[in-house]
Amino acid sequence: MSARPTPLSGFPEWLPAQRMIEQRFLERIQTVFELYGYAPLETRAVEPLDQLLRKGETDKEVYVLRRLQADPDDTSDATLGLHFDLTVPFARFVVENAGKLNFPFKRYQIQKAWRGERPAQGRYREFIQADIDVVDRDTLGFHHEVEMPLVVADALSGLPIPPVRIQVNNRKVCEGFYQGLGLSDPAAALKAVDKLDKIGPAKVAELLAETTGATDAQAKACLALAEISAEDASFADAVRALGVTDPLLDEGLEELVRVVEAAREHAPGLLVADLKIARGLDYYTGTVYETVLKGYEGLSVSSGGRYDNLASAGADRFPGVGISIGVTRVMGLLLGRGALGISRSVPTCVLVALPDEERRADCDRVAAALRKRGIATEVSPTAAKYGKQIRYAERRGIPFVWFPGEDGHEIKDIRSGEQAPASPETWSPPDPDLRPVIHAV
Amino acid sequence: MSARPTPLSGFPEWLPAQRMIEQRFLERIQTVFELYGYAPLETRAVEPLDQLLRKGETDKEVYVLRRLQADPDDTSDATLGLHFDLTVPFARFVVENAGKLNFPFKRYQIQKAWRGERPAQGRYREFIQADIDVVDRDTLGFHHEVEMPLVVADALSGLPIPPVRIQVNNRKVCEGFYQGLGLSDPAAALKAVDKLDKIGPAKVAELLAETTGATDAQAKACLALAEISAEDASFADAVRALGVTDPLLDEGLEELVRVVEAAREHAPGLLVADLKIARGLDYYTGTVYETVLKGYEGLSVSSGGRYDNLASAGADRFPGVGISIGVTRVMGLLLGRGALGISRSVPTCVLVALPDEERRADCDRVAAALRKRGIATEVSPTAAKYGKQIRYAERRGIPFVWFPGEDGHEIKDIRSGEQAPASPETWSPPDPDLRPVIHAV
Repeated sequence: MSARPTPLSGFPEWLPAQRMIEQRFLERIQTVFELYGYAPLETRAVEPLDQLLRKGETDKEVYVLRRLQADPDDTSDATLGLHFDLTVPFARFVVENAGKLNFPFKRYQIQKAWRGERPAQGRYREFIQADIDVVDRDTLGFHHEVEMPLVVADALSGLPIPPVRIQVNNRKVCEGFYQGLGLSDPAAALKAVDKLDKIGPAKVAELLAETTGATDAQAKACLALAEISAEDASFADAVRALGVTDPLLDEGLEELVRVVEAAREHAPGLLVADLKIARGLDYYTGTVYETVLKGYEGLSVSSGGRYDNLASAGADRFPGVGISIGVTRVMGLLLGRGALGISRSVPTCVLVALPDEERRADCDRVAAALRKRGIATEVSPTAAKYGKQIRYAERRGIPFVWFPGEDGHEIKDIRSGEQAPASPETWSPPDPDLRPVIHAV
Repeated sequence: MSARPTPLSGFPEWLPAQRMIEQRFLERIQTVFELYGYAPLETRAVEPLDQLLRKGETDKEVYVLRRLQADPDDTSDATLGLHFDLTVPFARFVVENAGKLNFPFKRYQIQKAWRGERPAQGRYREFIQADIDVVDRDTLGFHHEVEMPLVVADALSGLPIPPVRIQVNNRKVCEGFYQGLGLSDPAAALKAVDKLDKIGPAKVAELLAETTGATDAQAKACLALAEISAEDASFADAVRALGVTDPLLDEGLEELVRVVEAAREHAPGLLVADLKIARGLDYYTGTVYETVLKGYEGLSVSSGGRYDNLASAGADRFPGVGISIGVTRVMGLLLGRGALGISRSVPTCVLVALPDEERRADCDRVAAALRKRGIATEVSPTAAKYGKQIRYAERRGIPFVWFPGEDGHEIKDIRSGEQAPASPETWSPPDPDLRPVIHAV
C-alpha cells in the first residue's frame, strides 16, 4: 500500500468521533422502536436478482455480485444482488417464514442498503436505513397507521437535531377525490400531482390534461386539493369545501383526521396533513408519510406508508404499513454543515497515568477496577512525563487522569484542573461525564 | 411473489428471538470494547479490488460488484469487491486518514464481511466479525499484545456460553527456536507445523525434511516444541529444556510469559500457552491468538495477532495488534445445537388489553406513560375477548397484561396469574422482566 488511498464517492465513512454520534442516533432509534414492541430483524445483504427487480423502478440501481473466481460453467448459484432497501427483503422474509411468525408481526430493521446511483447531496451508494413495519394476515388494523409517525417522532426527539416535521397524506383522499371529480385514471392523476414541487402548478395542469384528460376545472380542483395543508382536522373542511364527494374520499378523510389528531395529542406541532404528498411508489394504498428537518426542507429523511399487496404467497396476503428513517442522510446533512459535536473522540472516561513501565501491572489493576464498575478506562501507552500523558488525554477529550501514588491515588479533572484523592473501588465520574455527550453545534 | 422463497446457503438469517440473542452478544462485546477505550469505526462494505487482493490467499473468495445497468464503456468506476474481513479495510482507513487520527489508535469495528466460500459448519458467506486493533506509528508497545486476550475474555464472559479457552503463542518463539536449531527457512518450518492437527506428526516431520531440509533430530525438536502447552510460565522451562538457544527465542519466551501471567491474574484458567498455534497468515510477527469454546474445539471463534507490516504508506509504517471475534460462528454453533434461549420473542414487557375499540386512545395513553419510563409496551391490536388478548401475550412471551378499568387499572403477571392494582405513572416490572433474558439451554 504505497499510494495513499482516497475516499470512494457515495460511500461515506465517518471518523470515530462522528461514528460515535451516529451510534447515539442508532441507539436512540433502536430503544424507541423496542419501547413500542417492535422485534429486531436482520436480513442478509443479498437477494436473488429476480426478487430485487420486482419493484421495477429501481432496476438501474442494483449492485449485482459475482464470485471473482467463480467457475463460469457452474450455474448452481442464483444471481444475487445487494438489497437497495429493507422493504423488499422484509417482504421476502415474511413470506419465507410465515409459519414461524406471530401475526400481526411488528419488526424493526436497522441495516445498510446499497444503490448504484450517481451520488449527490443526501444520495449515497451505501447508507443506513432504520425501518419499522407491521404486517398481518389478510387484514391490518388501521390504528397501526396512526402509530408510525408517533414512533418516528419519539425516535428523533431527544436528539440534538433541528425540529422534525412529518407530512402526512392518505392515498384514499387523493384517489377518492379524483374519482369523485370524474377523472378516469386516478393513478395517473396522482403521478402528475407528485411532480408539483419539481415542475410547478402550470405544468402539472398540462400533465393532468394530457394523461387523464382533465378539463381546466378538474385540473384546478386537483391543484386546489394539493394546496391544502393544516396541523389539525380543519384540512377536512377545506377538502369538503371543494365540493367533491366520494365514499373513498370520506374514508380517507376520516383516517387522516385520526392520524392528525393522535399526533396533535402526542407531539403537538410535529405533524401536518399536507395533501400534496403523494409518494411515487405504486404500492401505497392508505396513509403516506414524509419527514423533513427544519432548515433542510428539500430532502425527506423519513418516509413510508400503508401497503396492501407488497407480500403475498399463493392465497396468503400480508398487508402492512411501514416507515423508514434515512440515518445516513440525516448524518450526512448535519455533519456536512458541522451541526453536530461530541464531547470526546474516544469512549474513554479515565486515563490512568503510568509513573514508570515497572508499575504497569499496578496501573492495569486500577483500570480493571474502574472498568468493573462501568467506567471506560485506558492505561497510558508509555511512561512519558506526566505533561505528555495529560496531553494524550487532552487530544482525545478524555476528561480525567488518574495518578497512582505510593500511599494513595489521586484523580484530576483536566478541564478544571481540580485534583482530589480517589479509590478505584469507589470513585465515579459525574453522570454526564460517564459517556461522550453529543450536542448541536 | 407467488412461489415461497427458500433460504440461501451460507447466508444465515435468524428469527427475531434469535436476533435478540445475537444483539445481546453484540451489546456485551461493544460495551467491553468501549470499557477498554476502543473507539468505534465502521468502514464501507466495499474496497477497490486491488486492495482486497493484496492478501493473496483469499482471492478466490471475493465477491465482486457491478452495477446491473452499468454502461460497459464507462470505466470511471474502479472495480469494487465486498470486504472479506475487517483488517484490510481498517489498514486502508488508517493510511487514508492518518493525518486525522491520534496514535496509538485503538478502534473496534463490528460489521459484516463476505466470502464466496463453499458453506460448511462454522463457515458462512455472510458473517459478523467483532474486531479490536491498536496501531501506532513506527513502533508499538508490547503491552497491547497482553491486553488483547483480556478484552476478549471480558467480552465473552457474562454470556451464557460454554467456557472459553484462548490459546496463545508467539511467532518469535517458533522462529527463534527454528533458527537456533539451525533450520535455514523458519517460515517454511512454521507452515509445516501449522498442519500438525490436520496431518499428524509423522507427515509434519516428512514435510519439514522436504521443505526445510530438517534432519530427523531437527524435525523431532520442532515437534517437541509444538507439544508444549501450559497455563502458566512453566512452558518456558519446558522450551529451554529442549536445549536450543537463540536471542529471538529468548525475546519471544519473555513476551509469552508476560501474556500468560497477566491473563492468569485477570481470568485464571482462561488462557493457555500452546506452542503449536501457528496461524497460517504470513503477516504475524509476535503474539498470536486462537480461541475455542469447550465442547466445540474444532473451530476457532476468535483469533488474531501482532503484525508489523500490514499498513504502510511511503515512509510511514503502522505496526499493530488485533483480535477478531467470529460472532456469526459463535451464534451458528450454539443456535445450531439449540444451546441458547431467550425469555420472550419480542421486546414488549406489557400488553395493554383493549376493552373495546372506542377506548383505544385511553389505552394508548397508558402505553405512552409506561414507555416514557422505559417500559416496552404494546396495546392489543384488537378488542377481542380478554382470553384471546392474553393468548396474544402468551404466544410472544410478554409477561404482563394491563387491564384498564373505569375506576382504576390492574396489572396481571400472566405467568403466575397474580393480579394487582397499578398506575401507569408508578408501576414498574421487577428488574429481570424489563428486558428479555438470554440463557443457556
